[in-house]
Amino acid sequence: MTLPSLTKLLLKAKKEKNLSFEDLGNLINRDEVWVASLFYGQATASEEEATSLIAALDLTSDLKEDLSTPPVKGCLDPVIPTDPLIYRFYEIMQVYGLPMKDVIQEKFGDGIMSAIDFSIEVDKVEDPKGDRVLVKMCGKFLPYKKW
Amino acid sequence: MTLPSLTKLLLKAKKEKNLSFEDLGNLINRDEVWVASLFYGQATASEEEATSLIAALDLTSDLKEDLSTPPVKGCLDPVIPTDPLIYRFYEIMQVYGLPMKDVIQEKFGDGIMSAIDFSIEVDKVEDPKGDRVLVKMCGKFLPYKKW
Amino acid sequence: MTLPSLTKLLLKAKKEKNLSFEDLGNLINRDEVWVASLFYGQATASEEEATSLIAALDLTSDLKEDLSTPPVKGCLDPVIPTDPLIYRFYEIMQVYGLPMKDVIQEKFGDGIMSAIDFSIEVDKVEDPKGDRVLVKMCGKFLPYKKW
Amino acid sequence: MTLPSLTKLLLKAKKEKNLSFEDLGNLINRDEVWVASLFYGQATASEEEATSLIAALDLTSDLKEDLSTPPVKGCLDPVIPTDPLIYRFYEIMQVYGLPMKDVIQEKFGDGIMSAIDFSIEVDKVEDPKGDRVLVKMCGKFLPYKKW
Amino acid sequence: MTLPSLTKLLLKAKKEKNLSFEDLGNLINRDEVWVASLFYGQATASEEEATSLIAALDLTSDLKEDLSTPPVKGCLDPVIPTDPLIYRFYEIMQVYGLPMKDVIQEKFGDGIMSAIDFSIEVDKVEDPKGDRVLVKMCGKFLPYKKW
Amino acid sequence: MTLPSLTKLLLKAKKEKNLSFEDLGNLINRDEVWVASLFYGQATASEEEATSLIAALDLTSDLKEDLSTPPVKGCLDPVIPTDPLIYRFYEIMQVYGLPMKDVIQEKFGDGIMSAIDFSIEVDKVEDPKGDRVLVKMCGKFLPYKKW
Amino acid sequence: MTLPSLTKLLLKAKKEKNLSFEDLGNLINRDEVWVASLFYGQATASEEEATSLIAALDLTSDLKEDLSTPPVKGCLDPVIPTDPLIYRFYEIMQVYGLPMKDVIQEKFGDGIMSAIDFSIEVDKVEDPKGDRVLVKMCGKFLPYKKW
Amino acid sequence: MTLPSLTKLLLKAKKEKNLSFEDLGNLINRDEVWVASLFYGQATASEEEATSLIAALDLTSDLKEDLSTPPVKGCLDPVIPTDPLIYRFYEIMQVYGLPMKDVIQEKFGDGIMSAIDFSIEVDKVEDPKGDRVLVKMCGKFLPYKKW
Amino acid sequence: MTLPSLTKLLLKAKKEKNLSFEDLGNLINRDEVWVASLFYGQATASEEEATSLIAALDLTSDLKEDLSTPPVKGCLDPVIPTDPLIYRFYEIMQVYGLPMKDVIQEKFGDGIMSAIDFSIEVDKVEDPKGDRVLVKMCGKFLPYKKW
Amino acid sequence: MTLPSLTKLLLKAKKEKNLSFEDLGNLINRDEVWVASLFYGQATASEEEATSLIAALDLTSDLKEDLSTPPVKGCLDPVIPTDPLIYRFYEIMQVYGLPMKDVIQEKFGDGIMSAIDFSIEVDKVEDPKGDRVLVKMCGKFLPYKKW
Repeated sequence: MTLPSLTKLLLKAKKEKNLSFEDLGNLINRDEVWVASLFYGQATASEEEATSLIAALDLTSDLKEDLSTPPVKGCLDPVIPTDPLIYRFYEIMQVYGLPMKDVIQEKFGDGIMSAIDFSIEVDKVEDPKGDRVLVKMCGKFLPYKKW
Repeated sequence: MTLPSLTKLLLKAKKEKNLSFEDLGNLINRDEVWVASLFYGQATASEEEATSLIAALDLTSDLKEDLSTPPVKGCLDPVIPTDPLIYRFYEIMQVYGLPMKDVIQEKFGDGIMSAIDFSIEVDKVEDPKGDRVLVKMCGKFLPYKKW
Repeated sequence: MTLPSLTKLLLKAKKEKNLSFEDLGNLINRDEVWVASLFYGQATASEEEATSLIAALDLTSDLKEDLSTPPVKGCLDPVIPTDPLIYRFYEIMQVYGLPMKDVIQEKFGDGIMSAIDFSIEVDKVEDPKGDRVLVKMCGKFLPYKKW
Repeated sequence: MTLPSLTKLLLKAKKEKNLSFEDLGNLINRDEVWVASLFYGQATASEEEATSLIAALDLTSDLKEDLSTPPVKGCLDPVIPTDPLIYRFYEIMQVYGLPMKDVIQEKFGDGIMSAIDFSIEVDKVEDPKGDRVLVKMCGKFLPYKKW
Repeated sequence: MTLPSLTKLLLKAKKEKNLSFEDLGNLINRDEVWVASLFYGQATASEEEATSLIAALDLTSDLKEDLSTPPVKGCLDPVIPTDPLIYRFYEIMQVYGLPMKDVIQEKFGDGIMSAIDFSIEVDKVEDPKGDRVLVKMCGKFLPYKKW
Repeated sequence: MTLPSLTKLLLKAKKEKNLSFEDLGNLINRDEVWVASLFYGQATASEEEATSLIAALDLTSDLKEDLSTPPVKGCLDPVIPTDPLIYRFYEIMQVYGLPMKDVIQEKFGDGIMSAIDFSIEVDKVEDPKGDRVLVKMCGKFLPYKKW
Repeated sequence: MTLPSLTKLLLKAKKEKNLSFEDLGNLINRDEVWVASLFYGQATASEEEATSLIAALDLTSDLKEDLSTPPVKGCLDPVIPTDPLIYRFYEIMQVYGLPMKDVIQEKFGDGIMSAIDFSIEVDKVEDPKGDRVLVKMCGKFLPYKKW
Repeated sequence: MTLPSLTKLLLKAKKEKNLSFEDLGNLINRDEVWVASLFYGQATASEEEATSLIAALDLTSDLKEDLSTPPVKGCLDPVIPTDPLIYRFYEIMQVYGLPMKDVIQEKFGDGIMSAIDFSIEVDKVEDPKGDRVLVKMCGKFLPYKKW
Repeated sequence: MTLPSLTKLLLKAKKEKNLSFEDLGNLINRDEVWVASLFYGQATASEEEATSLIAALDLTSDLKEDLSTPPVKGCLDPVIPTDPLIYRFYEIMQVYGLPMKDVIQEKFGDGIMSAIDFSIEVDKVEDPKGDRVLVKMCGKFLPYKKW
Repeated sequence: MTLPSLTKLLLKAKKEKNLSFEDLGNLINRDEVWVASLFYGQATASEEEATSLIAALDLTSDLKEDLSTPPVKGCLDPVIPTDPLIYRFYEIMQVYGLPMKDVIQEKFGDGIMSAIDFSIEVDKVEDPKGDRVLVKMCGKFLPYKKW
């Protein structure tokens, strides 16, 4: 798994500045997951967002163009991810994919949840028996068009 | 994609009784997605849960054993799912998998979100510009043990 | 490549009645490609559409439910299709996929063409040097949401 | 996904000159998608076309040979593309591939749409509910030869 | 590897009638390889051809429709064929594919040999050191259209 | 698809000398396809053949060893080739593989056409309706040994 | 892994008659591995061989045709075999494949060992530290033809 | 297929010294195939063996450590090898794998031939009709332990 | 995932008799995991073991032959298992495979742990913070033979 | 199989210092397998652990950050490992995966053994008939949550 050089550069600068994704998100008024997806070449910044980030990370201004060009997306090399944290989400689909499809269609009819008009958030739920990860995905329902 | 005969039997009975997964969930005090995952052979009912469902669906009591035996899980045939609704969740991981991993680790340290000590809920968020699907996944954070 | 029994039943009845997809489309006011995708278990009819088709094809009314339930979609067995007609569309993406992506993004910004709020039409363009197939795909542009 | 160095060079020069694919297409009297496919090493320019493009992009003349040699085609690395924009076209074939095959054959008989004697165009259809992408593919129908 | 039932039926009848593909080809004025490809569900007969073959093989007339409907093509199950005779042709492409591409393009320019406007013949070349198989493939050259 | 550096060197020299594969084949009394397969690291030259080619292409004599050592063969990266010209030969096997097998076995008995004691030729057949590519493959028939 | 019904029938009869492959090989003057490969649909018997085997196994004479028709070969389902005994031979090639290639070419020049003009034998070598399996493969060397 | 740099270095030195694998095997009292597998990073030399080989090949002594460290084994890149010489052994398993399994188990009971306590030899069998390659594999039989 | 009919029959009888694998193991003096692997067609019973099990499970004596014939092994359908319990062991190898290899080789030299002369045990370790699964695998070390 | 440069650096230093994984484990009070998994980029050290290891191996302090950042895990390149030592563990799951699943569920109910709250140990069991490798895996049992 080799990360693109842009990703490495951004992650290194962030570490040196000792900034969290949340800090950077606050700076440009975006969620921390969105900022992380920009770092991994999966989202497109506006010119202003790019300028602010570059300033905060003390990077050269020629990165502005890279950060504001729509990238070729999809960042996982192997067909089935082998990193345990990421694999669990693949497994969730193996186990709960068809059940979720039925429930979504029972509530909404034939269609899908958009992965484009979509946001994702990660929260920590404190719990004495062990903290929990809460992932909230929220996407527009798109009904199948008939023609 | 051929569903196991138990799944087909349960879905058919549910349709004939005109019951939603939510109705069945209320009956046995479980979430609708969990009930759907039981239908698809991805979860194990207690004897009481099995008995209630069989009664509500007017099915024969020999299904109790099937519903209360831990199944071989994983219900999607192809390596990469081709159904558009389910594929979107695979795509979400392609696009947001590494970013989420970084954010989770920034908040929790080295470890994963459990897909076993885990629940998943689906809600409809009404919106004048088009209703939205809200999926909440919540799993215990498991830190990597060192030994 | 084995077609589902519902597809076979519908195709057989259509042949016996000597009806084209265009005839059936006119009957229910839908495009012929949409009707064909309903036959192949890739779309969901309304109750009225199902009733009209069943009557026109002289089939039993218990098919109404099958035609009006959202199906598990994706009808091609192998990962890469081997039928020459269908493969050509896969090849078109191999050859023109990235170029199209650039042109679409040059015109619309970062986002995709929806395959859900989407229609597809097939026309014959007569040409003395050999008739041509014209395929028109039209989908809503969905810009990537930022959050 | 690493682009060939020729592609990178051309894209960079185009950006610096602030030219769209449409501008370049007008220059050599070709469609913008065709120009983009030339950039991605999927098409072959004539000597004149190569010369004009090199001049417009202020590049060195030794690129003429590269642009006018038939390339090894097929520009997508993974078997199933992971970029969301490109994947949608793969999904369209999963969902509408067999239906289209039937409609094409109902109109033309046994044969295929050529992907060689073929053109593809991308247009923006303005729409108050959201602009739409219109993709027109047009290829010669090739009937199966019998011998 | 399971052959479709139509293929089995035709092969069995041919064997019982003790007819070679050449005999059947002479009967309907087609090459023996084409007749074999019809048997394997890879080609479409005219009504007359179907009628003659059905008569010669003493089969029921309801097969006429099957033989004259364009089939879903591609008869090899595994991605890489395991039968040694067929694998050799796959190997020939591994070894001589790129060399042939260069020679074809040196002679014809950028384009392909059609596999649709195409015929294939198999002959026995007698040779004292061991007979040889001669396979002649002949397809129309299709130059890439520019637009 | 990255070609080995030896292949690139040879192709570049050939281009600079403006020689066709046919010219080089005449020089060493070999077919043009065989010369091309030598360029792509799929065949082994004798010392004399290597010397003549190196002289004609004005290359350094240390290439003689590379050209006369049996290579690791198989030059196509992806399991299924994506270049359209080469894919057509893969498709030909999908469509005509089993039919050819039957015809070859009807003529020769159980065995295969050798891909080693084998030659392949490419010719241009001029035709007013469009020139045709004629590919002749000729290999020794090898009957299965019984022991 | 499902064996073809002909294989099952033959194995069952052999078991009931309590015959080893060696017994059957002696009967028709063939090696035991060859007889086993006939049972698994990988070889073709002569009419006499088929008749003798059918008599010895007390089977019906209509099997003669099945045993004497060249089969579609290749009996292992998965791409990489999972049975431990068979996998070891795959591993041997992973570990010793390239070394063997070099040694064979050092002894014979550029070419291959035929897998058609080929025999394979299995022997037991008694050894106080544990008996050993000796597999002898012997195939004609086929030098690459140049043309 | 890129060989590790250690392999290239060893093969180059061997060529310059004009030594065969047999010569090197005689030097250290090992079989030529074993020496070749050491060259390809598939076996581990003792310190003495490494020293002798390094001296004979005139290489620097820092290679001793590389030659005497157990390597990560498995030297073939693609899942199914494409080099014709190596593929034939894969094909032999496709065709004769299950038959051999039955014969081995008929002779030895349930177990496998070890690929670790194992040797492999390659010999040339001269034959007026064409020399033959004889490959002898000999491995300890390991019966399945029951516990 | 469809289990072979023999497995289903045995599991059903075991359930009806209300016997655990431990009970059956005690009966024939074997470990419970070994008994389970016999049920899944992965091991071979002696005639006595088969007779005892058949009696305990009240099954017909014709199963004796099935239980005492070496099976074709490998019981997981997909290349990468999708059942979460089984996948975890695959993940353990992804994460700890190379580290274990180094530790084993540091302790034993170049070789492997046999999976044939091998046993596996599963125990429950009670723990107030949550019980733990203890899996003990024990196989003979096999050093690589040199020859 | 190319190891990351960090891994190579650590392995080289360890070799030069002539330290075993056990030595390093004793130094920081961790098991040797855990230390090896840290070397292979599969675990995260604390700052103190990193400091001690860097001192013992005489490496530069800038490695501290690399050793204490959670890595992207999963270190085996091919889907199915080809190294014989590692493959055996994959085979163990093919053969004993489903049996183990049944035994674990018979003892614990529906759930899995955690691969995160998990440790693994490797021991040498001396045995006159050949030493044995003992691998002990111990993970928390995680019952499936119902909600």
